[in-house]
Amino acid sequence: MSTDQISVTIDLGDRSYPIDIAEGLLSDPALFSQCPKASMAVIVTNDVVAPLYAATLEASLRRYYPRVHTVILPDGEEFKTWQTLQKIFDGLLENGADRKTVLFALGGGVVGDMTGFAAASYMRGVPFVQVPTTLLAQVDSSVGGKTAINHPLGKNMIGAFYQPQLVVCDLETLDTLPERELAAGIGEIIKYGPIYDMEFFSWLEANMPALLRRDRAALAHAVKRSCEIKAWVVGQDEREGGLRAILNFGHTFGHAIEAGMGYGNWLHGEGVAAGMVMAAELSRRLGMVDAAFVARLRALIERAGLPVRGAVIDEQDNAGRYLQLMRVDKKSEAGEIRFVLIDGPGKAVVKPAPDALVREVIDACCAPT
Amino acid sequence: MSTDQISVTIDLGDRSYPIDIAEGLLSDPALFSQCPKASMAVIVTNDVVAPLYAATLEASLRRYYPRVHTVILPDGEEFKTWQTLQKIFDGLLENGADRKTVLFALGGGVVGDMTGFAAASYMRGVPFVQVPTTLLAQVDSSVGGKTAINHPLGKNMIGAFYQPQLVVCDLETLDTLPERELAAGIGEIIKYGPIYDMEFFSWLEANMPALLRRDRAALAHAVKRSCEIKAWVVGQDEREGGLRAILNFGHTFGHAIEAGMGYGNWLHGEGVAAGMVMAAELSRRLGMVDAAFVARLRALIERAGLPVRGAVIDEQDNAGRYLQLMRVDKKSEAGEIRFVLIDGPGKAVVKPAPDALVREVIDACCAPT
Repeated sequence: MSTDQISVTIDLGDRSYPIDIAEGLLSDPALFSQCPKASMAVIVTNDVVAPLYAATLEASLRRYYPRVHTVILPDGEEFKTWQTLQKIFDGLLENGADRKTVLFALGGGVVGDMTGFAAASYMRGVPFVQVPTTLLAQVDSSVGGKTAINHPLGKNMIGAFYQPQLVVCDLETLDTLPERELAAGIGEIIKYGPIYDMEFFSWLEANMPALLRRDRAALAHAVKRSCEIKAWVVGQDEREGGLRAILNFGHTFGHAIEAGMGYGNWLHGEGVAAGMVMAAELSRRLGMVDAAFVARLRALIERAGLPVRGAVIDEQDNAGRYLQLMRVDKKSEAGEIRFVLIDGPGKAVVKPAPDALVREVIDACCAPT
Repeated sequence: MSTDQISVTIDLGDRSYPIDIAEGLLSDPALFSQCPKASMAVIVTNDVVAPLYAATLEASLRRYYPRVHTVILPDGEEFKTWQTLQKIFDGLLENGADRKTVLFALGGGVVGDMTGFAAASYMRGVPFVQVPTTLLAQVDSSVGGKTAINHPLGKNMIGAFYQPQLVVCDLETLDTLPERELAAGIGEIIKYGPIYDMEFFSWLEANMPALLRRDRAALAHAVKRSCEIKAWVVGQDEREGGLRAILNFGHTFGHAIEAGMGYGNWLHGEGVAAGMVMAAELSRRLGMVDAAFVARLRALIERAGLPVRGAVIDEQDNAGRYLQLMRVDKKSEAGEIRFVLIDGPGKAVVKPAPDALVREVIDACCAPT
């Protein structure tokens, strides 16, 4: 079935921009008429996405840019490093990219985060456009201007708040997404329920089978509603002075799993999925939600094919290792970990929790299944 | 003689900040009460400046910050690289720096540029304070929020516009500055005459001996007037959409000399000095200033002990190599080099020039003396 084009606006004053959502957008050159003019466009993508979509995007962009150059990075979270970022800078400088050159991030969250940081830093800032081709990137990482690379001691530690000019979510690109990555994207979609919109959560419960079989209309609604919620939150708090941190529900535990297992072993959305169950369980032990809520969240995550238990990342002192990794989280202050907790379904708060209680949650949620 | 404390404000709305200029500021803890509060301060400095001033600054900061940690980098433009920047990130993460940690850049332009970029990028942005200890940094690089590292293919290619919270210019630190670096700083001061203020230029002509013997009152006036002009320009055009580029007078040729000779062989201020003569000569050949103006500029630069001739950076094709290096300048657009030219003394414009004429200028200004 076909979907109508949807546009969601991120309202940030003179940094506002649209998120366009529909099928077939990559091959619709008219869409790109709204991009900044320049003598060159540079597409940054990875070696999995390039054979699928680079030629289509190049053809669309050639209508507007005399020169279109493509930089191809290796695929995977383990390459979200300075070394890979350098490949983008090398490609830009070797091809004579100037301050007006427009970068296009064609791929998932890793490509988007790295291209965004490259755009923020190249000659102290050039314009860029997000063209997310994974569900996770369409519903979360391509929207809101968070860009970063990983540091060996922590995920997304080096980066910038830097907004794109436009986000292009072509639903057709989800056809080629591996099942595991589709599920990981659904993990980030589920997130928006507990923190903000339990009506959307109910919709997800009713429509999980449609999402899993990639029904276009269901995907369109899920992407749209996710972007609307994210747009609202980012519009209130662009630089994460407070509210925006609620979007990191499940991420504190999740980042520890990702780092503890070695980047690339657990997908980001998988870490977030198990992390949401752990954060919900912590909320329950703090008396903020009941067991029925935790069970309901766990059930939906399980139906999406996502992990509901944390990984054992240290055989000797698992909880200790979690705590150690979580202390370098960006939400920490003076060594105190701050968790995104659910204070009643549909409402998130950010606050610390006693180490002993956190250890209990880790022990309960990571025991062998 | 003693100097009164002077304060110049950079007016950028909610990113405004003061530049405090006086002697003895490093050992005046009251001064730092205006810095953001946090549980930790991190001083970034280099192995030349650290033994001279790190302990003094640490002592002043301990009054406000429970933890003060110092990161010491190798000294020199050739270390203005990602590898060195990583040492700052390592130091921050290993010491548990969080989003509120305040960075203090104690040193010259290289330390300031790198610390500023580290502050812009660490956890997507932490506050920082510039404590410039060289004349060049006090009159130019510490003010205005340009931060960067070099790329093998071009100077300052990777960076951010990121404003400090405060700039502390302690004139006492200039006592220990090597003569060559004092002269390099005077090069950047001279720049403000031709581009904006010929009255200041006349003052410099009258006071060059006082500056060279490090007369405190003369230095205080030169730093203050330079900061005032820079503050005005940056206040008009923070992100170099247009006007701000005039501050790069002499820098297009100068960057080519620095890169062509290998970073660290010519000081930045030395490249700018010879570059100003070359840019003035190009302006003359375009009919924008007369020979008397070029001679007057050259004479003042020479009195400061700075080079007035460009380096020969390629024995075979010197002009060709200059052009090649200048094409990657950040002011270039679509491969066309844009020069800061003097359109009558005291007024700068940014425009391209014919390659043939630029070659003539390079040949005339780089011939063996």
